[in-house]
Order: sequence, then structure tokens, then C-alpha cells
Amino acid sequence: MAITLTPQPLTQAVFAPFGDVIETQGSPHFAINAGFAERFQDLANIDVAADGGWPLISIFRGQPRPMPLRLTLMERHPLGTQAFFPLDDRDWIVVVAAGPDPRAPESVRAFRAGGRQGVNYARGTWHHPLIVLTPDHEFLVIDRGGDGANLEELPFDDAELVLEL
Amino acid sequence: MAITLTPQPLTQAVFAPFGDVIETQGSPHFAINAGFAERFQDLANIDVAADGGWPLISIFRGQPRPMPLRLTLMERHPLGTQAFFPLDDRDWIVVVAAGPDPRAPESVRAFRAGGRQGVNYARGTWHHPLIVLTPDHEFLVIDRGGDGANLEELPFDDAELVLEL
Repeated sequence: MAITLTPQPLTQAVFAPFGDVIETQGSPHFAINAGFAERFQDLANIDVAADGGWPLISIFRGQPRPMPLRLTLMERHPLGTQAFFPLDDRDWIVVVAAGPDPRAPESVRAFRAGGRQGVNYARGTWHHPLIVLTPDHEFLVIDRGGDGANLEELPFDDAELVLEL
Repeated sequence: MAITLTPQPLTQAVFAPFGDVIETQGSPHFAINAGFAERFQDLANIDVAADGGWPLISIFRGQPRPMPLRLTLMERHPLGTQAFFPLDDRDWIVVVAAGPDPRAPESVRAFRAGGRQGVNYARGTWHHPLIVLTPDHEFLVIDRGGDGANLEELPFDDAELVLEL
């Protein structure tokens, strides 16, 4: 029996167990550059130094998946955080799971992020690979470089979780 | 006598002495996420660990300055790199100086960056504070958190450098 997952609005409060929402709204800020810029300060906890790791800046260019989307796997990065920020102001989808087993359907949460919202997955947080809604949606990504096994994937053999917008 | 500075197109080659250009064009990339994303990998050298520093993610919201713009100061960060990536696809301006004294007019270079180009200023590189061309132009910024004197500013007392588009 399929379980339908419908994305909820993304807020800092609901996402707190999974990491940071990177956004200006509600974030501390102050004027810099003689007033010609406002700095929204320190919006995510970058945690990539385990086992000699270092921060990488990359760009991901995502392509939309067919919807409704049957979820077939989740992944996590035990050695570091991974931050995504969209480079176009278009909505995108974040799917995460609480706890150690992402296959428990009640542990999976889906959020609809706005185009001015990034997320930073906390170390070891199960999440679905990038889900975009429009072609060529690019993201700036800050994650961990370095040796070590920093990718775990878990296929959803039995779970029948379907994401519907 | 005023010296006029006209921005040149920004490329990785011309900017190499000052840091990195963060862009997909010409950068190594590979498919991830079962083909639903392309990863353009490791586009900037983040160097923020000196004296116990760590990486910060912030958002800067810039406002345009009157043009032509008389340059009145440059700044640099001796303890860390500082990366800027625009969150809207609109041109912006990068002004840097080679060598130890940014007041030498021949050392100053101006570049017009596209809206899909970020820059990462190398440690200790003199640069002008953010220059945008349109209101509320936001950037994701990755720079250094931590103690220590990481901001030097040098006013242009005598130099008469004027930026003209």
C-alpha cells in the first residue's frame, strides 16, 4: 500500500531536527560597506572537518524527476554537513528522515522550499538526493572534501513512499 | 587628475592572481543522482582555518552605488578567503588590486562579472567592497569566522580612481 507524502512549507522551526534553513527572513543582520550592503550573518553550521576534511564549493545543476515520485533511496553523509542554496528563485523539494532508519515511513518528512531558501543537512541526516521542479535548476553546494567514507545510501526495498506535490 | 577604470570581462585566467572565479563554464563536472544532477566540483579554494578560523555562510544584500564611482577605499582579509556568488542572474562589478599597495593606480583592476559568476578572493587580496548594479542584489558569501584581526581597510587619500561602466 503506497503512502503519499505531501510537502509542507519549509521553516527554520520544523527543519531544526535535520539541520539549518539558510534564509534572510528572521536571521540576524547588520549594515556593512558604509550602508551599501546588509549582512545576514552565519546562517548555517558548516561541520566538515572530521577526519581531516575541508569545505568544498561546488555547483549542482538539477533536472526535474517525473511526478508523482516514488522514493527509491535515501542517502546521508556521516562525516560532514551538506548545504544547498538555489541560484534561481524557484521552489524545490527537500525530503529528510528522522532517526537511524529512513525506511520507516513515519520518519520521512517532505518540505517545499522557496527559491530564497537553502538548507544545510546536519551530519548523518538521511535525505533524498536533490529534487527540483524546473529544468537546469542550479544550486551552490558547500560540503566536505577529503578521504573517508562520507556517502551512505539506503535503498527503499519495501517502502512504498510516493511524493506528490 | 582622475584615472578612469573600465571593467573588463571576468575570466578564470585574468582573475587567477586574485583568487578563483566560481562558475560552471570550463569547470570539471560529472553526473550524480542517477543522472538527475550534474556536479561541477570544487570550484574555489576555501582557506579560512588560520588561527582557529572556520567557514561561515552568510547572505549579503547589496545596493547600487552612484556611477561613475570614485573609489575611496579597498579592504582585505589577511586570515581568510572570501567567496561571493550572486543569487540573481545579474551582472556585478569586482575591483581588486595586485601587490601590497592598492593605492598604486596601475595595480587596480576592474571586472564585470556575469550573474552566474562568483569570485573567491584569495587571502590578503585587496578588493573593493561589494559593487552591485541593481537594487537588492543578494549574494551567498562563504568567509571566515573566528577571532583575530581579519579586516584591513586602506583609504584612498590621494588616488583619484573613478570606476565607469
